[in-house]
Amino acid sequence: MNTLGRHVISELWGCDYNKLNDMDFIERLFVDAALKSGAEVREVAFHKFAPQGVSGVVIISESHLTIHSFPEHGYASIDVYTCGNLDPTIAADYIAEKLNATSRETIEFPRGMGPIEVKSPSVQNV
Amino acid sequence: MNTLGRHVISELWGCDYNKLNDMDFIERLFVDAALKSGAEVREVAFHKFAPQGVSGVVIISESHLTIHSFPEHGYASIDVYTCGNLDPTIAADYIAEKLNATSRETIEFPRGMGPIEVKSPSVQNV
Repeated sequence: MNTLGRHVISELWGCDYNKLNDMDFIERLFVDAALKSGAEVREVAFHKFAPQGVSGVVIISESHLTIHSFPEHGYASIDVYTCGNLDPTIAADYIAEKLNATSRETIEFPRGMGPIEVKSPSVQNV
Repeated sequence: MNTLGRHVISELWGCDYNKLNDMDFIERLFVDAALKSGAEVREVAFHKFAPQGVSGVVIISESHLTIHSFPEHGYASIDVYTCGNLDPTIAADYIAEKLNATSRETIEFPRGMGPIEVKSPSVQNV
C-alpha cells in the first residue's frame, strides 16, 4: 500500500456550544464526514468529558479523523488524514460547516513521502 | 479547560517489519507511551489490515496518539497531541525507539492558540 497521504489540521472557532458538547451528534457528524469523502469506516471511539467537551476518532481504511472540542471556548481541534485518492478537505469543510464555525484556520501536510513540507496556513473568517 | 496544546507529527522510517505488523504490540506500545508521558488513557481503538498494517488511536484526557503503519515500507506515521503540561515528545521519542526507526522526521505545532505557527521540521538519522 502506498504511504502517501494528506493531513489537514483545522482549528475551528466560534462553533456552536451545544453541538460541541453533544457526543452523539459529533460521532454521527464524523462518521458522515468520513463517508462523504469516500472513506471506509473501520473503528469509532468517542469520549465525553465532564463538565464539558468531547474527544473522538474515526479510524478509516485511509487513516483517521479526530476531534477535541472545548464548548466553553467555541473551539474544536480537527484532524483529517487520508491516504489513497481521497480528499481530506471534503470532510474538513463539512465538519466546519455543521459545527457553525465562524473562524477557521487550516493547514495541510503531505505525509509518508519523506521530507515534511508544509503548505501555507490559511485563515478563513466565515 | 485551556485550549492550548502541542501536536507532534513524526514520520518514522526503517522500522522493524514484524513490530509494525503486530497490532497487540503496537497497542501496548501506544498505551505505555501515553502513560510514560503522564497522560490519562480514555479510549483505545486499533485495527489490523490485511495483508499487513495497523492503524490505531489512544484517546487520552489530554488529546490523542495515533499510528498508521506500513510494514512493507518500514514506515510508521505517528501523531502525538497533548494539552495541559504534558510533553508530547516523551511519547514520540519512546515510540520511535521501540519501533527501531532508523530515520525520523518530526514537526511540532501549537494547537488551540489562534494563528497556526509551525516549528521547523527536524530530521534525525539514527
